[in-house]
Amino acid sequence: MTSLDAEPQGLAGTAAIVLLSGGLDSATTLAIARERGHRCHALSIDYGQRHAAELAAARRVAAALGTVEHRVLAIPLGEFGHSALTDTHIPVPETPTRGIPPTYVPARNTIFLAFALACAEVTRARHLYIGVNAVDYSGYPDCRPAYIHAFERLANLATRAAVEGETVQLHAPLIDLSKADIIRRGAALGVDYAMTVSCYQPDTEGRACGRCDSCRLRRAGFAAAGVADPTRYR
Amino acid sequence: MTSLDAEPQGLAGTAAIVLLSGGLDSATTLAIARERGHRCHALSIDYGQRHAAELAAARRVAAALGTVEHRVLAIPLGEFGHSALTDTHIPVPETPTRGIPPTYVPARNTIFLAFALACAEVTRARHLYIGVNAVDYSGYPDCRPAYIHAFERLANLATRAAVEGETVQLHAPLIDLSKADIIRRGAALGVDYAMTVSCYQPDTEGRACGRCDSCRLRRAGFAAAGVADPTRYR
Repeated sequence: MTSLDAEPQGLAGTAAIVLLSGGLDSATTLAIARERGHRCHALSIDYGQRHAAELAAARRVAAALGTVEHRVLAIPLGEFGHSALTDTHIPVPETPTRGIPPTYVPARNTIFLAFALACAEVTRARHLYIGVNAVDYSGYPDCRPAYIHAFERLANLATRAAVEGETVQLHAPLIDLSKADIIRRGAALGVDYAMTVSCYQPDTEGRACGRCDSCRLRRAGFAAAGVADPTRYR
Repeated sequence: MTSLDAEPQGLAGTAAIVLLSGGLDSATTLAIARERGHRCHALSIDYGQRHAAELAAARRVAAALGTVEHRVLAIPLGEFGHSALTDTHIPVPETPTRGIPPTYVPARNTIFLAFALACAEVTRARHLYIGVNAVDYSGYPDCRPAYIHAFERLANLATRAAVEGETVQLHAPLIDLSKADIIRRGAALGVDYAMTVSCYQPDTEGRACGRCDSCRLRRAGFAAAGVADPTRYR
């Protein structure tokens, strides 16, 4: 029932909720959902992350790739602190970290997927997409296949649709891909990665630091994929 | 591992996150968590419900029962509409309904529990409490035992604590109780139900309509429990 890696058929014309951060991974995920023929409702979460550049990127990507709707929800995840992405007192690491990095946001994907499920319920969509990948982000617990399966199982008990006998599928098409694989896949689908922002601490014009975990993974990914890196570094 | 109905031991002094709506069920749940000796962090969600009376009741209950913290998070669930509780264009039914009632809020408990999990993560609490019950609310998919088990399973894959080998327990101590059972239990624990608001459409002073599903269940519960009903009806 889950669709972590397959190339499912018969999706053309069906509605999907796609979590869209404005980064490289979620842009590629949206391009894959569009290629499968979904009518895509993009959902971005303004959760008090350090930078508005990410949400501006999400708007560009949603417009460029063709969505039927782009909803931006403001939620007070920043109030919880405890993450370098929402608490400016915690520095973004600029050297590789071991274990779960300080950029981990408590329960983030669970909260994002819960809102995606609510969106699915009101739009009668039966497909959710999230751009997690377990290869580069193995330090984040909520990016792993077991987590994705568990959320899908929950979704199929949680909603009116479930009671009425319909199933929800949670797709994580990048889960087994390396950053280079993702970039090759997106480039083949025509994604313009110049629109995306991956940096954890971009400047006000959206230019990347080139030093944080996310920048390093992204830069190495373009190099390994043999694709020119369009990122604007400051 | 789940604690749907047992009377678990050894909880004294441990931290718990208790979802607190201001209604009868969640007040009883908080009283049970306090009786077990938890240090309770109450969490209320301002989700655009029709009435502020419910949140005012939550504040009274949190203060009366003794919590170490009461956090109120504003989340934009009302933007989704599609529920009589968040969309004033959908009438609250005043006669019994069949199936899932129009007061069902899409993915509500999944969203609430996701935020409770985030709270647990930042406070290092290992216990979550929710006052769902499957007897009176069998029409709501996200109040059933299978749903509670699935969320607990998800929680134990989702967080930093899970990766570090600690487990989260989701307690739903009311799940098998009727409304009368809940009232008897709470009354025995000294809960003053005059503080609580269950009505789906109270007036600005918190007085109940006496006609909605929630009022009818509550009134019948007091009668069946043989406990004087302290509800202020308008």
